[in-house]
Order: sequence, then structure tokens, then C-alpha cells
Amino acid sequence: MSADELDFAEIHRFTVQLARDAGQRILDGSQQRTSSDDSAAVKDTKKNRVDLVTETDQAVEAFIKESIAAKYPQFKFIGEESFAGGERVDLTDEPTFIVDPIDGTTNFVHAIDFVCCSIGFTYKQEPVIGVIYNPFLNKLYSARAGQGAYLNETTRLPLTHPHPPALPSLGHAVIGVEWGSDRSKAVIEKKGRTFMKLAGDGNEIEGGVMAHSLRSVGSAAINYAMVAAGQLDLYWEIGCWSWDVCAGTIIAREAGGKVYAKGGKAWTPQDLMGHHFFVVRAIADSEGETGEEAQDRIAREFFQVAEEWDV
Amino acid sequence: MSADELDFAEIHRFTVQLARDAGQRILDGSQQRTSSDDSAAVKDTKKNRVDLVTETDQAVEAFIKESIAAKYPQFKFIGEESFAGGERVDLTDEPTFIVDPIDGTTNFVHAIDFVCCSIGFTYKQEPVIGVIYNPFLNKLYSARAGQGAYLNETTRLPLTHPHPPALPSLGHAVIGVEWGSDRSKAVIEKKGRTFMKLAGDGNEIEGGVMAHSLRSVGSAAINYAMVAAGQLDLYWEIGCWSWDVCAGTIIAREAGGKVYAKGGKAWTPQDLMGHHFFVVRAIADSEGETGEEAQDRIAREFFQVAEEWDV
Repeated sequence: MSADELDFAEIHRFTVQLARDAGQRILDGSQQRTSSDDSAAVKDTKKNRVDLVTETDQAVEAFIKESIAAKYPQFKFIGEESFAGGERVDLTDEPTFIVDPIDGTTNFVHAIDFVCCSIGFTYKQEPVIGVIYNPFLNKLYSARAGQGAYLNETTRLPLTHPHPPALPSLGHAVIGVEWGSDRSKAVIEKKGRTFMKLAGDGNEIEGGVMAHSLRSVGSAAINYAMVAAGQLDLYWEIGCWSWDVCAGTIIAREAGGKVYAKGGKAWTPQDLMGHHFFVVRAIADSEGETGEEAQDRIAREFFQVAEEWDV
Repeated sequence: MSADELDFAEIHRFTVQLARDAGQRILDGSQQRTSSDDSAAVKDTKKNRVDLVTETDQAVEAFIKESIAAKYPQFKFIGEESFAGGERVDLTDEPTFIVDPIDGTTNFVHAIDFVCCSIGFTYKQEPVIGVIYNPFLNKLYSARAGQGAYLNETTRLPLTHPHPPALPSLGHAVIGVEWGSDRSKAVIEKKGRTFMKLAGDGNEIEGGVMAHSLRSVGSAAINYAMVAAGQLDLYWEIGCWSWDVCAGTIIAREAGGKVYAKGGKAWTPQDLMGHHFFVVRAIADSEGETGEEAQDRIAREFFQVAEEWDV
């Protein structure tokens, strides 16, 4: 399809409403959850026993997929649960929805509020529309290419817009990180050592940057939303998937954030289907350094510290 | 003072209103914050450059202290900022308010929502009233000894009350941990290794328990509130202070949680003024094991893994 055939404003409105409707279904699903043993909510696990799936994940993805098919039958669909069920759809130039029905499933099972529905939309392989909706906290983050990013459709992001603060060094940052579901020795030790260097005092720990702090909220999409809002200065993830980050990518970018590929290299559309993600919040231009130069400086500082691995 | 002279119900109502009023002042303070560079909000640091203090911390503590002195001039007061200013008050049997005006100051500076006012009240050295109020998310957790714990004064805690789920093992837990402000090599390496064992697969990492996950929200009091709610299964902290945990201790206990001293030993009133804290959420009695036995089992499992240090 050509861009002329696509009404991006209408797709955006549709996506916002779809995320709200999906969020209501997540809330409904949580009512069943809290009335019984939390283990009863877990329908299955994926690659290991901490990679949880609930009936609500599957029901909400089915709802989203059917809603899209009814409204836009010609669009392609990539979804976490469809993928888990064996459905393989390559990313092409065609209009494509990329969906995680519940990002933060472990939180959902444990009744932690950091749960969202993440719906991204790509055209020519670039994320151009994204909505992340947390129904428990009623926070809806949305963006459309060239139109800015918003919280609850009214508050421009970042929250400090139009004057996002400086970020003198990585040592001044609050950094989003996650322990993830790959718990192998190789991955956990690389993560653990990286986190220790990010937190540790460089006078005592080699490579220590003593960042303001590290946060782990348990949802990749919410980490992107927090970077878009300017609450987290950066977020680093290895091992998650396009559905975790597609919506977040356009929301963070429209909020002035910059996304990077593996090791802090320049982002290309192909990286959306990879598993290495890194995003830095908006930083205002200052005397002697543009905001983008400051973002690149922070990224360089980060990847001098981070240990990486292939996935 | 004797217990007959104290109207605990009235003190509880006063404390709830005081926390709400303090929360409004925190919100007001945040408006100044987001209008400028975040570094402008930081007035000072304590033991090192990541231990932040803002004018709002100090103004809110002054407000709370004055409000208490006006209403209950005979009560004692222990507060984080008063302590930082050199005021030393020992915990005695007398009625005592123990206050952190802003728990989660780094979050406050970075506009992250996990910020609260924490007001505890002890009598005969035991926490008997506690209120934790997050004004950004409008969540007020409160408890009075023997009267249960509540969210926003209406929802009984834990959220699963009266049937808190089982916790088969530490491997099924979501665990609250923090990187804290002591960034010395000794502490960060002990923390990091402990976190890696909690997250890591025991088939590959010695001592690995492969917990469901670890969360770091950046506020000790909010971790206690999340344990009280049943969202976190447990929370471990070394190095924080009575004002971080006093309110949380009674809220968690009234929600069926159990608190422990250093290394999982039995809690005594003196431990409130120490720096080793551990709390496990409510667990229902089951066939062959009371809920308290299950909590003790989880604590034993945890302290087989955790590396500790003296503070």
C-alpha cells in the first residue's frame, strides 16, 4: 500500500481506542486473578518456568488481532502470543501492527501495577504509531510520527517539554534495567557485572560510574514510556522482542529520545526485529553540544561499561 | 505516658490527614522541579553524591514536625532531615513519631512516580500506627495495631485478603531489592552477587534460586507497602533507617506480613533502630504448614543465599 492510501490519523485514533479496550479486558482478567491463588492464573510458561503466560495474555491478543482484522483486513499482524503459538510473520514494508497484549506478565500475575498493553504500527518497516496503555494506573502513552508524544492524549512528553534537562554524565542518570527471563549463568553474570559497574563507585570498582540509581519495573514497554516521559534517563535491554519495543520506539522518538542498535551503533529498521535495544531520553541543546550529541555521548559512556552477548 | 492517656484512633486519623497534607506539599514541590533543570532541585547531598536532598524534603519535614508539635506537644519526634541536621533522639517507650518526609528522593528529583511520605508512630518502642502516602499515584497505605491495614482507607490489605496465596518456594517469588546509596565495592559486590543468585538458574549458578523476578522501585517504604499489598513477596534491605521502615513495619504486619531482623533472626523492638530489614508477605495457612511457618521457611531459604555485611 502507498502512504496515500493510509489515513495515519485515523489509524492512530483506532489504536488508542483499541489499547483502552484491551486495557479494560486486562482489568477484567485481573479480577479473576486476585480471587484465587496466583499460580491459578498462570496458564503456561514459555522458554522456562519464569517466562509466564496467562489466559488473559492470550484472550487479549485474540481480541486485538480480531479487532484489527475487522477494521483493517489488509494489514499484517505480529503478536507475542501468535508467535508463541507458531505463527511466523516477517516484517515487510506493508502496514503492520506489532502487539504485546500484556507486557509485564509477571507483574500481572503478582498484581504489581506495572502492566501494559503495547500496540505498535509500522509502515515501510519503521514504527510510525505507538500506544502503551497501563490500565491499572490509567496512563496512556501515545505517539504518531511527526506529531509528538503524549501522556493521556493531553500532556506533551517529555514531562519537561520543551526544556528537557541536561545530562552531564552517565553518573547523573537513573537507568532502567531488567533481570529478564534468560537466567543462564552467562547472561545473568554479564548483566550482574554490568549493573554493579553502573551502580558502583569508580574509585573502588573498576569501570564504576556510580549512576544516580538503577530501576527495575518489569516491563520493557513501560521502561520506554518512562524514558519518553524523561523519568528514566536511559533503558538498556538485550533479549526482548519487537512487540516489547515497537510502540515504545516511536513514543520515545517523538518525545525527543534516541534509539540505538547493539552496542550503541546507529539504529536501522532491521534492528526492530533483533534483540538489542537501547534508548536515551531527550536532552536539550546546550552551548557547545546539541541534544543528540549529548545522547550519543551518554551512549558511548554506557557501552564502555556494558557487557554484551549475542541472542 | 500510659496507654490509657493515648487515643490511638485519633492519632491514626491525625496521621492520615497529616500524610495527605504533606503529600500535597510534595506535589507542590514537584511543580517547581519540573519547570527547570532537575539538578536545580537538588539542594544538597548527604554521605555521597547520589544521596540527594531537596528543599522539598526539608520543607515537608518541617511542616510535619510543626504539625505534630502543635497537636501533640508531648510526643517525641525522629525525622530523616532533623537527624541529618544533627538532631539525635533515642527511641524510648514514650509516644514517638518517626518520619521520612520524602522516601524516594532520587525518584522525586527524576520525576519518577514512586515517591511517598512515610509517617510511623511508636509506643513502647513498637510501631503501632503507620501511614505511607504516594501523592503522585494517590495511594495511601495505613494501619493501626490490631485494626488491619488498608489501601486508601477502604481496601483491606493484602489485596488478596482473606486468602493470600501460597508461596511454594523462593523460586516463585518476586523480590524487592534496591541498589541503595552505599556504592562501596564491598557493599555493591555483596548485593550484586546476591541478586545474581536470586535471579540465576541454580543448574548453572551455585546457589541460584531463579526467583520469578527482582524489582527495584527506589523507595523502601513503597517496597513495604507492596509487600503489605501482596504485590512483592518479600523485600530485603540493609543500610536504611527507622524512618524508612517504621510505618511500613506496622502496615506490613497488619496485612499479615512478618518482619525479621538481621539474617532472618526474630525481630525485636531494638531492630527498628538498626539497619537490617527483611519482610515477607502474608501467606495463608495450608495443610501441614501455618502461614507463619511458610514465612519462616521463605526467610530461611533467602538467608541461605543472601550475603550480608555490618552497618
